[in-house]
Amino acid sequence: MKIIIVGASGTMGKHLAGAFETGHEVITAASKGCDIQVDITSTASIENMFKQAGTFDALISTAGPTFIGPLEKMTDKEFRKGVDGKMMGQINLVLIGQHYINPKGSFTLITGALTHEPQLNFANASAANGAVEGFVRAAAIELENGIRINAVSPTVIENSPHYFPFFPGDIPVTMQQLEYGFRKAVFGANTGQIIKPY
Amino acid sequence: MKIIIVGASGTMGKHLAGAFETGHEVITAASKGCDIQVDITSTASIENMFKQAGTFDALISTAGPTFIGPLEKMTDKEFRKGVDGKMMGQINLVLIGQHYINPKGSFTLITGALTHEPQLNFANASAANGAVEGFVRAAAIELENGIRINAVSPTVIENSPHYFPFFPGDIPVTMQQLEYGFRKAVFGANTGQIIKPY
Repeated sequence: MKIIIVGASGTMGKHLAGAFETGHEVITAASKGCDIQVDITSTASIENMFKQAGTFDALISTAGPTFIGPLEKMTDKEFRKGVDGKMMGQINLVLIGQHYINPKGSFTLITGALTHEPQLNFANASAANGAVEGFVRAAAIELENGIRINAVSPTVIENSPHYFPFFPGDIPVTMQQLEYGFRKAVFGANTGQIIKPY
Repeated sequence: MKIIIVGASGTMGKHLAGAFETGHEVITAASKGCDIQVDITSTASIENMFKQAGTFDALISTAGPTFIGPLEKMTDKEFRKGVDGKMMGQINLVLIGQHYINPKGSFTLITGALTHEPQLNFANASAANGAVEGFVRAAAIELENGIRINAVSPTVIENSPHYFPFFPGDIPVTMQQLEYGFRKAVFGANTGQIIKPY
């Protein structure tokens, strides 16, 4: 299977690239340090990535920039970080990628528990996650040729301890659990699902 | 209670304005034909609306432009209609309005069943709704001084029969049910809730 991993320079993406290299052709993409350079806030850059990668069987995204800060000081400007990043960045990977993906291929995006379990300072991520999850369910009933789409929604990740103070009481998801979530999405047959790997 | 209704020239907004006029000071706002002219895709226009309205006790939004069309032909351009309209339009009403609202005031936004029950051609609305619902839950835990925020999430509305063909099997929500949903949000004590008036 030919798998593109967007966000492959990050904690999650690196782990998944390593895990899926055995038995699959993995193409890594990120803003730097990967096979293909991509800026997911630019549709031209996404289009260029798919042209370089060619047709593929699975796209995994672990790319999700959002703004972290108190609601009281938040304006449209800060909010757009998550809108253009984690939300439209990932949605555009699908809107554009649908024209490059092979039949029976799959898209797997990243969201997070913040959709339904908010934490202080993360309103931007809650909104971006909610948008991506709504989109995943809607896209699943329109994609044809057996193409599937799901999202993996972890809580805080064990390898990101700097986030722990923001997520009191959240049991960190292990990298192994996260990998299981993506395995279910990529190698399973589900579509339109929000997979919670915990 | 001083209530601002944004989208008051539309089917839902008109009904709510009529229903809440008894016993309350209702200020209507829309792109045209209301007490205050507002373009919710412009933060300057929203700011101007609040300056004209002055402090208030409740903001109701029934304003939700989104793009309707097949996923296969959808690009970032079409998708931004719902992003800048139903999503950021409503979120900006709160981000800006939080500086004008009275203590114990409330924000009530509009989403819809498409968040969890997608229909063909409505991926943009599903995403916008999901974003607003994630935001509502997150904002609820940050707003202070007893300020509340909820969303009302109807299915298709009985007064919009031109939408019926797009929503096979959805039992239309009556205007009375819709009104009950907003009454619960505005005059109740809940916060962070997605109220389904059916």
